[in-house]
Amino acid sequence: MYTVCVRDHMMIAHSFSGEVFGPAQRMHGATYVVDVEFRRRELDAAGIVVDIGLGTEALREVLGALNYRNLDEEADFAGRNTTTEFLAKTVFDRMHARILDGRLGASARAIESLRVTLHESHVAWAAFEGPVG
Amino acid sequence: MYTVCVRDHMMIAHSFSGEVFGPAQRMHGATYVVDVEFRRRELDAAGIVVDIGLGTEALREVLGALNYRNLDEEADFAGRNTTTEFLAKTVFDRMHARILDGRLGASARAIESLRVTLHESHVAWAAFEGPVG
Amino acid sequence: MYTVCVRDHMMIAHSFSGEVFGPAQRMHGATYVVDVEFRRRELDAAGIVVDIGLGTEALREVLGALNYRNLDEEADFAGRNTTTEFLAKTVFDRMHARILDGRLGASARAIESLRVTLHESHVAWAAFEGPVG
Amino acid sequence: MYTVCVRDHMMIAHSFSGEVFGPAQRMHGATYVVDVEFRRRELDAAGIVVDIGLGTEALREVLGALNYRNLDEEADFAGRNTTTEFLAKTVFDRMHARILDGRLGASARAIESLRVTLHESHVAWAAFEGPVG
Amino acid sequence: MYTVCVRDHMMIAHSFSGEVFGPAQRMHGATYVVDVEFRRRELDAAGIVVDIGLGTEALREVLGALNYRNLDEEADFAGRNTTTEFLAKTVFDRMHARILDGRLGASARAIESLRVTLHESHVAWAAFEGPVG
Amino acid sequence: MYTVCVRDHMMIAHSFSGEVFGPAQRMHGATYVVDVEFRRRELDAAGIVVDIGLGTEALREVLGALNYRNLDEEADFAGRNTTTEFLAKTVFDRMHARILDGRLGASARAIESLRVTLHESHVAWAAFEGPVG
Repeated sequence: MYTVCVRDHMMIAHSFSGEVFGPAQRMHGATYVVDVEFRRRELDAAGIVVDIGLGTEALREVLGALNYRNLDEEADFAGRNTTTEFLAKTVFDRMHARILDGRLGASARAIESLRVTLHESHVAWAAFEGPVG
Repeated sequence: MYTVCVRDHMMIAHSFSGEVFGPAQRMHGATYVVDVEFRRRELDAAGIVVDIGLGTEALREVLGALNYRNLDEEADFAGRNTTTEFLAKTVFDRMHARILDGRLGASARAIESLRVTLHESHVAWAAFEGPVG
Repeated sequence: MYTVCVRDHMMIAHSFSGEVFGPAQRMHGATYVVDVEFRRRELDAAGIVVDIGLGTEALREVLGALNYRNLDEEADFAGRNTTTEFLAKTVFDRMHARILDGRLGASARAIESLRVTLHESHVAWAAFEGPVG
Repeated sequence: MYTVCVRDHMMIAHSFSGEVFGPAQRMHGATYVVDVEFRRRELDAAGIVVDIGLGTEALREVLGALNYRNLDEEADFAGRNTTTEFLAKTVFDRMHARILDGRLGASARAIESLRVTLHESHVAWAAFEGPVG
Repeated sequence: MYTVCVRDHMMIAHSFSGEVFGPAQRMHGATYVVDVEFRRRELDAAGIVVDIGLGTEALREVLGALNYRNLDEEADFAGRNTTTEFLAKTVFDRMHARILDGRLGASARAIESLRVTLHESHVAWAAFEGPVG
Repeated sequence: MYTVCVRDHMMIAHSFSGEVFGPAQRMHGATYVVDVEFRRRELDAAGIVVDIGLGTEALREVLGALNYRNLDEEADFAGRNTTTEFLAKTVFDRMHARILDGRLGASARAIESLRVTLHESHVAWAAFEGPVG
């Protein structure tokens, strides 16, 4: 199995609901350094897993829709805690949609699975992974 | 599949038995930067994999029992080489027990697998992973 | 010259005023991984630059007063942009005060300078350094 | 499942064929920081996954045959794009051969799978993993 | 003294002349992860050291002129070994020129010194630093 | 000013005397990832700060004399606490001696200063720097 990973980041504000979150119930924020891993069994004719230019552009676009925002005010997340693990799934879903609609190139449709990791500090990260298609 | 990872560290002394270890047969030591990954298929109602506060506290407790110690003198390890891979399993077992006995919260019982990684330098690490329950 | 450095982090929300900040004028946030370097010419009798326990505790306290907060609502920062470089100076000032008032131990008064670095992502950081006393 | 990982690096020149590569069609180069992960279900009698000395030596040898070279001139790669993912497979194949021919020690034959990761910058990496034997 | 640092990277091919370089006399290459630090005594009215957008853009431009190239064919470097330390000075000179000609904004003229670091692997880096103006 | 840095590591056991050390008074150990920075104002005729091969070899030799050892039993350190900052000075002194006696090459005598950093975990490091000659 081959994997290719690209990295970018976003900086957001949010707050959480529920006593389990302690002081993180207050409005605060995070830098998320985001890794997206693309996986497939065989390389394409050019010898690649994915066009890294298109992959990087798609990730910048996905993060750009969240970056420098207060996630408490985003309609998509109403009534949800935008925890690191939840946001990993959000980025996964949006990258996944871009693969299916062809924005990562025709060859990218051979990608079998994705893994999205959000590093939130030097001591914590969360990830979501799943099949494509 | 969702993953959440927390990090802490410990500093221990030990020595190894067996020619394969070369100079590491002498009394020496290591800093282990320890990552524990918690994995489950669905988030709980709060939108999390595990209460990160309880997870961090459990890890500090597990490492605290080993930290600043000469592992050659620990009864639990008598007759064993406390290699990095062996210690990854040790931390796995002790975190696993804490999940089962409820110390990471009731919701943590939905955790399906754990992975424990011990980084011993900028050029080497070892890990142990397995199912929970 | 000897240096000892300790690391911790905080997660805050804020917004900036001024067109130079572009989209960062919106409410957003950051994880700051914070390094504090203590410097002095000679070690003390115990062979250390500073009691690392007290240094770490002081840093946790300083960051604890900012952590999980919306800095736009902090009276201390009214009318100021809490940029990374500005916050590096804030942490510097508060660690500096703790050295002078003896909370890092009597021997810490021999510390000659401090440097505080805030890492805001994998591609950017800011720092402030200056003499002590 | 146990994993042990060792790291080394190589510095090579190459160029790519195909419009998908854009400016990387020109002669350029890369530092690859290479991680090799060895995996097996049980530790051997000494408490290890692999003799880390032999593993490190094998990796140095494999990378030594590529290091400080223009890969466009290597007969083994004629007509192929030596992308990061392709090279991850190359290093995998050569480490795999060394396990099978006993150069990592008799006990290393219990290794069940290998994963090879090539970090090409702070924002991109590629990997290949597969079973042994 | 305040510092702000931004990071980007480039991937180049080159070869060296002189026996001191051993196998690096052959055509090979490197990824350089490049940090540029901007330093000044006081923040400007907005609370910043430099417009990070302009700083990042300038660095991308400077690295873009070298990226994906064989430095042995660059007229600017004829007869010179493009070692990591030499290239750190090259990036320094080109960033320095951009500060002086105003491309980092009028306020950037208060920058007092620059430091440019090129990370070439996980075990080696080189830097050049000097005053501005 | 030019800087070149090389990295290696060592794994040692030791214990400390004095209540300030708390649990670190017990026998324990550490991995030290060691960076040595060489600094000079001008490059030599080959375009380098130091022969990186000789520099790396000297560092391996210096660390080799400490690696896989219990520092409490080393005659050189009798009656001293081998703290991270103390060991930074020890490595500094031994690298310094090698520069002066010509083992890093004749050209290395133009090195003006050295900085030695010992990273002991992901949250702490210590350094010593001083002039050469």
